[in-house]
Amino acid sequence: MPDMRQKDLTRRGFLAKAGRGLATAQALGALATRASAQQVPEPPGRKLGFAIVGLGSLAINQILPAFARAEKSRVVALVSGHPEKARKLALRYGVAPKSIYDYQGYDALRDNPEVDVVYVVLPNSMHAEYTIRAHQAGKHVLCEKPMATTPADCQAMIDAARKASRKLMVAYRCRYEPFNQEMIRMAREQELGPVKVIVADHGFNIGDPTQWRLKQDLAGGGSLMDIGVYSLQAARYVTGEEPVEIAAMSYTTPGDERFKEVEETIDFQLRFPSGALANCSSSYGYAGVNRYRVVATKGWFELEPATSYTGLRLRVRRGNAVEERNLPQRDHFALEMDHLSECVMDAKQPLTPGEEGLRDLKLMMAIYEAARSGKTVKL
Amino acid sequence: MPDMRQKDLTRRGFLAKAGRGLATAQALGALATRASAQQVPEPPGRKLGFAIVGLGSLAINQILPAFARAEKSRVVALVSGHPEKARKLALRYGVAPKSIYDYQGYDALRDNPEVDVVYVVLPNSMHAEYTIRAHQAGKHVLCEKPMATTPADCQAMIDAARKASRKLMVAYRCRYEPFNQEMIRMAREQELGPVKVIVADHGFNIGDPTQWRLKQDLAGGGSLMDIGVYSLQAARYVTGEEPVEIAAMSYTTPGDERFKEVEETIDFQLRFPSGALANCSSSYGYAGVNRYRVVATKGWFELEPATSYTGLRLRVRRGNAVEERNLPQRDHFALEMDHLSECVMDAKQPLTPGEEGLRDLKLMMAIYEAARSGKTVKL
Repeated sequence: MPDMRQKDLTRRGFLAKAGRGLATAQALGALATRASAQQVPEPPGRKLGFAIVGLGSLAINQILPAFARAEKSRVVALVSGHPEKARKLALRYGVAPKSIYDYQGYDALRDNPEVDVVYVVLPNSMHAEYTIRAHQAGKHVLCEKPMATTPADCQAMIDAARKASRKLMVAYRCRYEPFNQEMIRMAREQELGPVKVIVADHGFNIGDPTQWRLKQDLAGGGSLMDIGVYSLQAARYVTGEEPVEIAAMSYTTPGDERFKEVEETIDFQLRFPSGALANCSSSYGYAGVNRYRVVATKGWFELEPATSYTGLRLRVRRGNAVEERNLPQRDHFALEMDHLSECVMDAKQPLTPGEEGLRDLKLMMAIYEAARSGKTVKL
Repeated sequence: MPDMRQKDLTRRGFLAKAGRGLATAQALGALATRASAQQVPEPPGRKLGFAIVGLGSLAINQILPAFARAEKSRVVALVSGHPEKARKLALRYGVAPKSIYDYQGYDALRDNPEVDVVYVVLPNSMHAEYTIRAHQAGKHVLCEKPMATTPADCQAMIDAARKASRKLMVAYRCRYEPFNQEMIRMAREQELGPVKVIVADHGFNIGDPTQWRLKQDLAGGGSLMDIGVYSLQAARYVTGEEPVEIAAMSYTTPGDERFKEVEETIDFQLRFPSGALANCSSSYGYAGVNRYRVVATKGWFELEPATSYTGLRLRVRRGNAVEERNLPQRDHFALEMDHLSECVMDAKQPLTPGEEGLRDLKLMMAIYEAARSGKTVKL
């Protein structure tokens, strides 16, 4: 934060010169005015109320703290099967005791006028049911990715939103933060010429073999559904195109107790109508990697990390020079929640509506099919 | 070169302290002894004589200058269709006028006892003929990559070498230099655990549409044969395994005058018996990239650049730390030539014999087949 340091030094220099008495009082008054204009944000405008459904580590460590950075969104309700956990979090985040729900009482959200939006942060296979019931309760929905475990469930969610005349948005947080947006801009504006190849890798070495991510009926699949979808998303949002062909290859270590039900690694190739090709990897078996590089005719640009919650880095190569572009590190969750709040308030379609989640589900099913059959799937 | 600077400072300090007269003379004597021991290399031992066949930019800019760094190899003959170019280079590199040949006189190499090895640096489709004729002339052969344009040609070259009882080596220079060797060591010793995924990208935006690399009959293919083979090699030498399945996808920009005959971009996936998967790209259409990353269970290691003639960089990530490993930047061509000389002198099999080139040709044919058919090719 060089600007802040600069400001600090200036203020200290000014005080030293200003001396005592009247001069000091005047100076402090002037400073107070400056400080207020520069450092204290305006009071927020209208904020929509969010109910957080599912208090796992994502909700606890990322989503709930993000409200402090949100301009148009506040947390007003919690839904959890663990009353003690919910009570503690309610105290921390100022949620009224009456606005703590368990899953039996979920539909009573209908009667809570403070709740505008339900943010579904449950295991994948539960997204559909809790999204549909939220819509039936008259609420807008922000749903974590992947949207569901089948295209049919995605379609049912979209239908429920339409029937209820409520917004449905998939929580593709990377679409809302500056680094990925800059990559999209560079690709679409052909800053380094037409895009030829995208290389995207997302994975981590997954731990606890008992977690829901490793159960087929809860997760709907393995690494692809959870982390590989970032590679797929990146290829799609960078090009702004839909793939027309998919090839894939999968590997799961025999005897590894983590992977009794779901795939460990799946690599896939995409062909886009413009001719751009993507090489993507997805793994629960390799050490943490999240990156993508876009190779164009005059150079390349890349993010690594690309999709971490913070600390993203953008490097650009043009000719023989590599430069790093520094952009603001913003809270992805605050940005995505505020986007939906804004769309609700202004009656706009979200950037990543249910239809976007459905597209990814269909593509992931095609990736699995290509890996299974050993044949390129044409879309 | 921090060591050199350190040495310099020490020497200067020593002189300052040594003062004048006898002390200085003694000091300078001591320094002379040190300097001789440290900085003047021993005279070379026996060197084999090389004939360079084909004086294109690779020979002029890389191979001929590399002899200055070679310990066991010297240039003694040139073969070219351009007498004036050959004469100039012969003068620069001390080649006798009688040892300049044109292609009509090529077989007369047989009668030049100074020539032990023929280094074939011709367009791909000419490798077979000039390798076979060199063997028939009783010479050992170092052949540029790709070894030939068909597996049948590779086999004929191998047969000719065997019949003549001479060595045949493919000029896979990266196998002989420290950075790629360190990557191989790290993978094989599982320094960061078993290898899960290799991502390799090689390509450049090719210029002059009239060059031989863009003619099917001379090059035998497009980017894959020339630059993509580095991605293929990297995946193979890192794992030390042979792929058992290949999928691929190709794209060539319609109407681009460079690509009337050969492919622009081809991406391919490899499956190895250990379960390691590779995602590789190869392109004549994207801006210069040469890199590969090996993702293992506990971290990753990567080279970028990976296969440039010099300036390679190795980065290793383990846990949350990324370190760069500095290794000597050696002359790849000197190392590969010396390897063959040593193999000839010690009657050893080269690390990259004709059989290695043949394997790559068969795999590249399978990559083309997979791209054409849209089906995974099983090997």
